[in-house]
Amino acid sequence: MIADDSDGRRRAVIENVTPVVDQGQFPVKRTVGEKIVVEADVFSDGHDRLSAVILYRHRNDSGWQETSMEPLANDRWRGAFQVDRVGRYQYTLSAWVDRFATWRSELARREETRDIAVALLAGAELLDQAAVRARGEARERLSHWAAALRDDTTLEERTALALSDELVSTVARYPDRSLATSHKREYTAVVDRERARFSAWYELFPRSCIPGQDGHGTLRDCTGRLAEIAAMGFDIIYLPPVHPIGRTNRKGRNNTLVAEPDDPGSPWAIGSGAGGHKSVHPDLGTLEDFRDFVKSARGLGMEVALDIAFQCSPDHPYVKEHPQWFRWRPDGSIQYAENPPKKYQDIYPINFETDDWQALWEELKSVFSFWIEQGVQIFRVDNPHTKPFGFWEWVISEIKQEHPDVLFLAEAFARPRLMYRLAKLGFTQSYTYFTWRNTRWEITHYLSELTRSEVREFFRPNFWPNTPDILHAYLQFGSRPAFMTRLVLAATLAGNYGIYGPAYELLEREPRESGSEEYLNSEKYEVRHWETNRPESLKDFVTRVNRIRRENPALQQDWNLEFYPVDNEQIICYGKWTEDKTNIIVGLVNLDPYHRQSGWVRLPLEALDIDPRHPYQMHDLVTGARYLWNGERNYVELNPQGVQAHIFHLLRRVRTERDFEYFF
Amino acid sequence: MIADDSDGRRRAVIENVTPVVDQGQFPVKRTVGEKIVVEADVFSDGHDRLSAVILYRHRNDSGWQETSMEPLANDRWRGAFQVDRVGRYQYTLSAWVDRFATWRSELARREETRDIAVALLAGAELLDQAAVRARGEARERLSHWAAALRDDTTLEERTALALSDELVSTVARYPDRSLATSHKREYTAVVDRERARFSAWYELFPRSCIPGQDGHGTLRDCTGRLAEIAAMGFDIIYLPPVHPIGRTNRKGRNNTLVAEPDDPGSPWAIGSGAGGHKSVHPDLGTLEDFRDFVKSARGLGMEVALDIAFQCSPDHPYVKEHPQWFRWRPDGSIQYAENPPKKYQDIYPINFETDDWQALWEELKSVFSFWIEQGVQIFRVDNPHTKPFGFWEWVISEIKQEHPDVLFLAEAFARPRLMYRLAKLGFTQSYTYFTWRNTRWEITHYLSELTRSEVREFFRPNFWPNTPDILHAYLQFGSRPAFMTRLVLAATLAGNYGIYGPAYELLEREPRESGSEEYLNSEKYEVRHWETNRPESLKDFVTRVNRIRRENPALQQDWNLEFYPVDNEQIICYGKWTEDKTNIIVGLVNLDPYHRQSGWVRLPLEALDIDPRHPYQMHDLVTGARYLWNGERNYVELNPQGVQAHIFHLLRRVRTERDFEYFF
Repeated sequence: MIADDSDGRRRAVIENVTPVVDQGQFPVKRTVGEKIVVEADVFSDGHDRLSAVILYRHRNDSGWQETSMEPLANDRWRGAFQVDRVGRYQYTLSAWVDRFATWRSELARREETRDIAVALLAGAELLDQAAVRARGEARERLSHWAAALRDDTTLEERTALALSDELVSTVARYPDRSLATSHKREYTAVVDRERARFSAWYELFPRSCIPGQDGHGTLRDCTGRLAEIAAMGFDIIYLPPVHPIGRTNRKGRNNTLVAEPDDPGSPWAIGSGAGGHKSVHPDLGTLEDFRDFVKSARGLGMEVALDIAFQCSPDHPYVKEHPQWFRWRPDGSIQYAENPPKKYQDIYPINFETDDWQALWEELKSVFSFWIEQGVQIFRVDNPHTKPFGFWEWVISEIKQEHPDVLFLAEAFARPRLMYRLAKLGFTQSYTYFTWRNTRWEITHYLSELTRSEVREFFRPNFWPNTPDILHAYLQFGSRPAFMTRLVLAATLAGNYGIYGPAYELLEREPRESGSEEYLNSEKYEVRHWETNRPESLKDFVTRVNRIRRENPALQQDWNLEFYPVDNEQIICYGKWTEDKTNIIVGLVNLDPYHRQSGWVRLPLEALDIDPRHPYQMHDLVTGARYLWNGERNYVELNPQGVQAHIFHLLRRVRTERDFEYFF
Repeated sequence: MIADDSDGRRRAVIENVTPVVDQGQFPVKRTVGEKIVVEADVFSDGHDRLSAVILYRHRNDSGWQETSMEPLANDRWRGAFQVDRVGRYQYTLSAWVDRFATWRSELARREETRDIAVALLAGAELLDQAAVRARGEARERLSHWAAALRDDTTLEERTALALSDELVSTVARYPDRSLATSHKREYTAVVDRERARFSAWYELFPRSCIPGQDGHGTLRDCTGRLAEIAAMGFDIIYLPPVHPIGRTNRKGRNNTLVAEPDDPGSPWAIGSGAGGHKSVHPDLGTLEDFRDFVKSARGLGMEVALDIAFQCSPDHPYVKEHPQWFRWRPDGSIQYAENPPKKYQDIYPINFETDDWQALWEELKSVFSFWIEQGVQIFRVDNPHTKPFGFWEWVISEIKQEHPDVLFLAEAFARPRLMYRLAKLGFTQSYTYFTWRNTRWEITHYLSELTRSEVREFFRPNFWPNTPDILHAYLQFGSRPAFMTRLVLAATLAGNYGIYGPAYELLEREPRESGSEEYLNSEKYEVRHWETNRPESLKDFVTRVNRIRRENPALQQDWNLEFYPVDNEQIICYGKWTEDKTNIIVGLVNLDPYHRQSGWVRLPLEALDIDPRHPYQMHDLVTGARYLWNGERNYVELNPQGVQAHIFHLLRRVRTERDFEYFF
């Protein structure tokens, strides 16, 4: 029975619940099979004992499940439940003063005979009450015990009975919750499939998938590349927009203002007479080709992620059909994208402040629905931070309600608050500042924010060492060792990572001009021919790193990260492990792409369950080499001309010399 | 016009507002004349400019007042308003995309003639719209400017007009807030009179105010002591319960189980045939004597604080009148207070889980009302943490609604969560762990929690070096220097402090037994005769410290505290200052009551606005001595046999040698 909430006799207080995002305004995120560890301050006035439970349910279920919480210290309580289905879970708390537990703890401390005698009678009353709440056989037992506490056997006998485990655990199953405090809020968790937490993305321009040196690649050509990409170990093949490209104000190669007649234009200048956001560019093929492409990828264990960029070329059908969705200038022209003095005349932003915003939202939602019908389950959303937050919250929630398996990656390279807001309101994964975090201090500091603070409850990072828009100076100047370093960091620090290829594995590193982060001859504005079989390709290295990721569950999650001290700022060392510590990976990377670097690493042996008296084995999964280490401090040396990074599998010594295999 | 909240065109986001206690569940606290500095994350999608305001009002006012917020960095905004009346204030926020400011900032960056021309026309439209919102003369000016922007004068002339301060500030007065985001929550501030923030308490057992060596002191006797206490500089005279004391199970001297016939009993064993919580103990006098006492105190600039202890002796009238307010044992007796194996048979706790809880609450509330009618405005509440939090929240809110000037001090020596909860739900001031914080690390750490964390928004500490229940070992073993040290720390670290006298100034320090924190021959169980004129009394020292507090506004607040490094762990040094830095106090205390201690202090000269090239003066307000200090590091020496503590007034060198007075 839940009495009226204003009942002044409810004495338990529940405060400061975690995990909670913005007081419960937004959900926390988990993937299937993970736990939600709930903590709260639970207390009441006085010295009485309390009980507390977590109530939780999948939103599709009607009834609540319960799991009990245990006190830690200083009135902090903890409990946990596992989420095993995709969708939305809800959880809340309840706590109450436990009169039986209070009575029992006092009984155990009583000294005087008369006190004990009276206390046993009081206990009998509590057992009678518990019997009323109990069912079946338990009810009989409780009544029987109540009578026994009133018997004329010795105080010692009766006290022993009252304190017996069986009696106590039986009563605990039928607590008096008539004055329980129900926490006022229910919190939400969005549970995604595993791919939300662990994925390797490969970005590819299908038009560059040309068999020869010239022409325009098609989706069919691109299908031919899939086996090679799958063999490298990627899960997600991500395509820039595949829609018709506008003619008006089309940009030429290297982002020049005037295009040559045969320049293909930017895939992000979406829309032409051939269609808009629900059409495939005729030069890439047909909608059927697209569906075939998705199917082929799936056959190779990969999914296709589509780029959704809500903006229009001047030739987009929306411009004529829905002129009210654009901002008009006093001279009768439509407002193009700009950030004065810069102008982007090939792009019309959508005016989300239009009076017709409801129809606009529905239409944009239908774009997602359309591609879901073509088999797409993952969307990479272009610049979501330039469209209203309210729109994203609505559209993602709408889509996921029908298709809870769909994932959204936010490409918001924006200020922290904006990026975090987008993650809170529903994006499954998010681009990050990783691309610009290159020194040890930068990396350590940033990863701590992402994996140790409450940010981790809602923001799932996806690390990209490069994108078609970003060629960082570290890669430009660091060449091959820098590409290896950044790949290892992205792939082992984050469960989700991606590269823009084949530019990455082919070490493409010429900027458009000195000081620029843009690629020279960017694929954004022209078709490129990539010789993917060049001997210097990092393909084999990438393949190996992706295999290491798949074989080591420690690398398939983000929260289990700790950095270890190295007495050389150019070397970064970190550990990741499974909760049961059966899989421990130690990353060790030389951040200096020019020089050999060495130093002493310090591992926290106790935390890693390593006996400091015996050696342990560091098995480098990149080269296959095995090192025996001793104690907490060990010497390391990394050489850009040879091994630039170790991905160690740490093997403890678990057997004696009488066994054949020493380390596991 | 405020449109429907679900309008998808509202693009501004307001997050992470401070100050807020538990997401707004509880109010923040301020005193009259203080500011509430509100900060929030305010941002929208895209790159548009925003505006944000704080809305606030006294709860008795109907209309909201507004003050604008300014951006700091990284989407954090700040504004402030002053609270100048006692009672409850509410505040919330509103923010909107500022189209005019956005337009203006873009105009300033435009380079091409045609862009500027079109932009000026767009600006004219914005001015037309502003004119519609404006009133009177401003409306005419805005229309006039709109026309001017469409004139055929040069672009330069029109741009200069558009960017002119006068035009911009006029438009800013009539912003377009049709798509403003109103923050969903309203927050509350409880504003108290100044005494809530700055008070010096003196606890006194009136029955010990006997003119001679024997007998039982009366309220009239106590009235005779008031002038002396006022002269020491105290604001609040706090009396333990003044009610009739029970006979049944009365405790004897030194808390013995059996009282002698002439033992007066504990004032906290409330109630007898002579009355309960609304009566005065016949041996102390009459209700009229009490009212006279309050009046006399007021005439000396002091207020009387009364102790409210909601518990009953077995002889309390409630026991017969309301037996349902107590817990009954199976043997037909009433449950006395106990913490097995300890028993307090002279006290019956009230059973707040009674079915009759509503009548009980009303009766307890009437106790406060009764004493308010007798002139009491301040209550010290005994052990509030053993009564339900819901009761306190209700009763304090009820009382303060009618009597917003009434202050409540929570005597909860309990676990942190309980103490903080009581403060959140309404107690004006709170007892603290100060009594047990004696080392520099303990003091620094604890004060940082109280004055730097969000705790300060709701928890107003009141520091007590002793109470009738607590004689800390530091005082027992440290004797006179320890009493001086603890007095200076309490009086200068906290705006609110108190002592239990005359035990304190007379250096009473015999424990009941070795290892005990209880006083030998405690006044709780017997009448004591105090020779207040003993030469070793700290009376003069206390008087001086209280005068220093009154004369230096830096000591009348809690948040302006910083600890300064000293290279000797036995010396603690800290600064307090007024916001304008015209009053700077530096406390310097020897924590070692046995030995002379010396060390080097480091002051942050720049933060204190001190020119490091010239000497500055440290005027010790305790002894009157003046020291010239140089630079940030200076030598100090403190001697338990002489000066145990400095309370320095820091005087900057503000004139040259041509003036007579150098330092201010």
